[in-house]
Amino acid sequence: MREAFHDELDSVFDDLVDLSSKVQVAVQDATASLLGGDAVLAERVIAADREIDLGRERVEDKAFALLSLQAPVAGDLRLVVAALRMVTELERMGDLSVHVAKIARLRAPQIAVPEQVRTTVNRMAEVAADMVGQVVQIIAERDVEAAHALARDDEEMDLLRRTSFAMLLSDDWAYGVEAAVDLALLGRYYERIADHAVSVGTRVVFVVTGQPVLG
Amino acid sequence: MREAFHDELDSVFDDLVDLSSKVQVAVQDATASLLGGDAVLAERVIAADREIDLGRERVEDKAFALLSLQAPVAGDLRLVVAALRMVTELERMGDLSVHVAKIARLRAPQIAVPEQVRTTVNRMAEVAADMVGQVVQIIAERDVEAAHALARDDEEMDLLRRTSFAMLLSDDWAYGVEAAVDLALLGRYYERIADHAVSVGTRVVFVVTGQPVLG
Repeated sequence: MREAFHDELDSVFDDLVDLSSKVQVAVQDATASLLGGDAVLAERVIAADREIDLGRERVEDKAFALLSLQAPVAGDLRLVVAALRMVTELERMGDLSVHVAKIARLRAPQIAVPEQVRTTVNRMAEVAADMVGQVVQIIAERDVEAAHALARDDEEMDLLRRTSFAMLLSDDWAYGVEAAVDLALLGRYYERIADHAVSVGTRVVFVVTGQPVLG
Repeated sequence: MREAFHDELDSVFDDLVDLSSKVQVAVQDATASLLGGDAVLAERVIAADREIDLGRERVEDKAFALLSLQAPVAGDLRLVVAALRMVTELERMGDLSVHVAKIARLRAPQIAVPEQVRTTVNRMAEVAADMVGQVVQIIAERDVEAAHALARDDEEMDLLRRTSFAMLLSDDWAYGVEAAVDLALLGRYYERIADHAVSVGTRVVFVVTGQPVLG
C-alpha cells in the first residue's frame, strides 16, 4: 500500500516536472514571438496552452485519487496538497505566457516593444524563463537551496519592472500610449510569472522542511 | 467523529464567508479611495490586507488538520480541498484590491482616473464588488445557481475592460501616458478580481455537484 502510494506520488511529481518544462518553453517562445514580431510562433504558444491545461487536470485527478484512496498523513499529505497548489501556479504561468503571446500577435509583424526598452524586456523574460527552469529543478530534486535562490531572482525582476516603468513614464518616451500600455502589461505579466515561480519554490521548502518560508 | 468533522468543516466555511466579506470591503474601499483620491482610505485598505492574510492562514491550518486527523473521503474530501482552493483565490482578490489602493495612494489627492472614464471604472468596480458579494452568498449557501450567474457578470466585466481600452487607445485620449497606464492596470486588476470570483463559484459547483464546470 505504502509503496503503491509512493509510486503514484512520484508519478505526480514527474508530471509536475514535465509541466514546468512546458511552461518554460511557453515563456521562452512567447518572448521570442514578442521580440521577433512573430505571429506564427505566438499562435503556437497560444495553442500549446491546451497541453498545459490538460497536464494540470491529470495532476489534479491523480492527487485527488491519492487523497481519496490512500488517505495519506503528515509529510505525505503535505506533498499531495503541495502538488495541488503547485499545479495551479504552473497553469497560471502558462496563462501569463499566453497573455504575452497575445500582445505579440496583436502587433505582429510589428514588434510591440520599442527598440529602446527591448534589452530590459529581454532581460525580464530571461529572468522569468530562468526562474521557471529553476522550478523544474526544485520540483525534481526537492532542492531547498535553489528555492531560496529564487527570491534573489525575484528582486532582479522587481528592479527590471521599475526600470521599465521609469522609461515609459519619462519625458523622453517617444512611442505613444499604445506601446506604453503594452509595456506596462508585459511588465506585469513577467512579474507575475516570477511571483508564481517563487510561490512554487515556497511550497517545496514547506513540504521538505515542514516550515513555512517567512517574508 | 463524523459530527466533529462536520462541525470543523462548518467552521472552515464560516471563516471563508467572513474572509469573502472582508474582501468585498477591500474592493469597495479601494475603489472609493481611487475615485475619491483618498490616501487615508487607500492606506486603510493596504493595512487591512494583513487581516485577510491571517484569515487565509487560519483556514489553511484548519483544513490541513481536517485532512490529517480525519482523513475524509468522497464529498467531504472534495469540500476540504475546495476550501483550500477558495481561500487562495480570496487572498489574491485581497491582494488585487491592494494594487488598486496603491494606485490611488500614488496619485492622491489627485484622482488617478480621468473624469471621462470614471463611469466605466466605477462600473467595473461595482461589478467586481457585486461578484465578491455573490461569492459570500455562494459559499454560505452552496448556491449553484448563483455560481452560474457569476459567468454573466464576468462577461460584463470583459466588455467594460474592452471599453476602457478603446478609450485609452483612441485618438481623443487627452490624459497622457501615465493615466493610460494606470487605467490599463486598473482594468487588469478588476478583471482578475472577477476571474477569481468566477473561479470560487466554479469550485462551489464542483463540490456540490461533483461535476466540473465546462468552458
